[in-house]
Amino acid sequence: MIDRSISDELIAKGREFMKGYHDGTPYLEEYESDQDLKLPQPPLVKTPMADESARTKLPMDFDALPMKNDLVSLIRDRKSNRIFTQQPLSLLQLSFLLWATQGIKSIRGKSYATLRTVPCGGARHQYEAYLLIRQVEGLQPGAYHYLPMEHAIEFLHPVEDLEGAINDSLSGQRWAAKAAVVFYWAMDAYRVEWRYGIYAHRVALIDSGHIGQNLYLACTGLGIGTCAIAAFRHDVCNEIFGLDGTNEFVVYTAPVGTVRPEDLKEEQAFYKFVEEQGL
Amino acid sequence: MIDRSISDELIAKGREFMKGYHDGTPYLEEYESDQDLKLPQPPLVKTPMADESARTKLPMDFDALPMKNDLVSLIRDRKSNRIFTQQPLSLLQLSFLLWATQGIKSIRGKSYATLRTVPCGGARHQYEAYLLIRQVEGLQPGAYHYLPMEHAIEFLHPVEDLEGAINDSLSGQRWAAKAAVVFYWAMDAYRVEWRYGIYAHRVALIDSGHIGQNLYLACTGLGIGTCAIAAFRHDVCNEIFGLDGTNEFVVYTAPVGTVRPEDLKEEQAFYKFVEEQGL
Repeated sequence: MIDRSISDELIAKGREFMKGYHDGTPYLEEYESDQDLKLPQPPLVKTPMADESARTKLPMDFDALPMKNDLVSLIRDRKSNRIFTQQPLSLLQLSFLLWATQGIKSIRGKSYATLRTVPCGGARHQYEAYLLIRQVEGLQPGAYHYLPMEHAIEFLHPVEDLEGAINDSLSGQRWAAKAAVVFYWAMDAYRVEWRYGIYAHRVALIDSGHIGQNLYLACTGLGIGTCAIAAFRHDVCNEIFGLDGTNEFVVYTAPVGTVRPEDLKEEQAFYKFVEEQGL
Repeated sequence: MIDRSISDELIAKGREFMKGYHDGTPYLEEYESDQDLKLPQPPLVKTPMADESARTKLPMDFDALPMKNDLVSLIRDRKSNRIFTQQPLSLLQLSFLLWATQGIKSIRGKSYATLRTVPCGGARHQYEAYLLIRQVEGLQPGAYHYLPMEHAIEFLHPVEDLEGAINDSLSGQRWAAKAAVVFYWAMDAYRVEWRYGIYAHRVALIDSGHIGQNLYLACTGLGIGTCAIAAFRHDVCNEIFGLDGTNEFVVYTAPVGTVRPEDLKEEQAFYKFVEEQGL
């Protein structure tokens, strides 16, 4: 337990951060970011991490996917799922999820910005998508990295005890270890700090929510399930994907898997405490 | 211009915040939030601010709305719009946007949580939706507050120089003053701090992105436009909606209006600098 006066102070700081204030000061008009200072822009995406032979090009024939297409139903039926049947995803399903969350639609200027399937402050698109894949048809289980320019994934390495790695990385949320694939969105910090500097981080967190919501709706459309997780272990994630944890670190995660209505009761069990505590 | 060593330090702090660290410390297992301490839970929504006579119940017959209903197209065609034709929104369109971003689907337990059309960490749903309405059929222009339990809006007060108020509140983004309606999502901080305490704010920012993305997709479905804004003036927003700015403050905003393809060229003008600077 930490002292109340300390936690109150940390909470006050958290609120200030959410306002984009620094030491109680609203936006500093005179602040100049590296973009304002005309410093060179960082690359739009991360350099591929593995050899080209490790790449799997992802199919784009999304019309071939059975999809729920009614927007009102998609928004209404979107919910968290934590119980996954152990049926694998198809490569096309995975491809659609990656495209819906980080897919590149076009490039603005020579190489000023990527325009993607999600909005992002200043179109900086500072996220890199990493995956732990357990059950995707035709893919060897292990750690992967998404290449949005190619709409491909590259195999990084196998993971010994994959379920253990998922469980550890997600702070012991055991249900997640049964996911077919887990998304880890890591932020390449300077990509957005170049433009927004000391104001980058608040905006970047909002951006991660845009991504998460598209994943929820894409899963709802496919009739599969997810439950995004913001509480995870940075040390474990950094080790799995080889991130330095300073310039690049995971911000948001989401286990995805196949679901079936029969498991609804088991889903409800996650909320037993509400009844037990008479809340 | 602020000193580089200071901005570097603030940037380092911003990264730490994004990781959910406090003073470089990962999640403190021993930390206990007010929920852990069994302190009473705050209300699920804010008490209505105006008299019942100021309420407008919102229609729910969304099937009557002409809607784009192909998920792949919705995700692909979602983009930012800043040029709004001065045609008003219908009440049903506004109702759909409010429902899609903050609508309540059900209550968990006696009064433990609202389940809404967007996901939210711990289902705390700490946001209140405020509106500046310029052009919605049948509604007097002015400041409004959304009542999610009733799916109604309450009229707070007229706003003298509405366009000026929008412009000031959004830090002088002039285009926004021509919106039919501007959404301001304010956070009722303790609603989420009760559960997550010193870890509430990072999660709450992500949650605001879920809301923003549903607004983008709902607008795409309706064939209208939006461009979310994270840079705004707290002092002006607080004054307009009567927020104390400490326990409740605006986190994210979005002007919404009708659009037409003929304005695409004018939209492109917002990115002139890319060509001009040869980026």
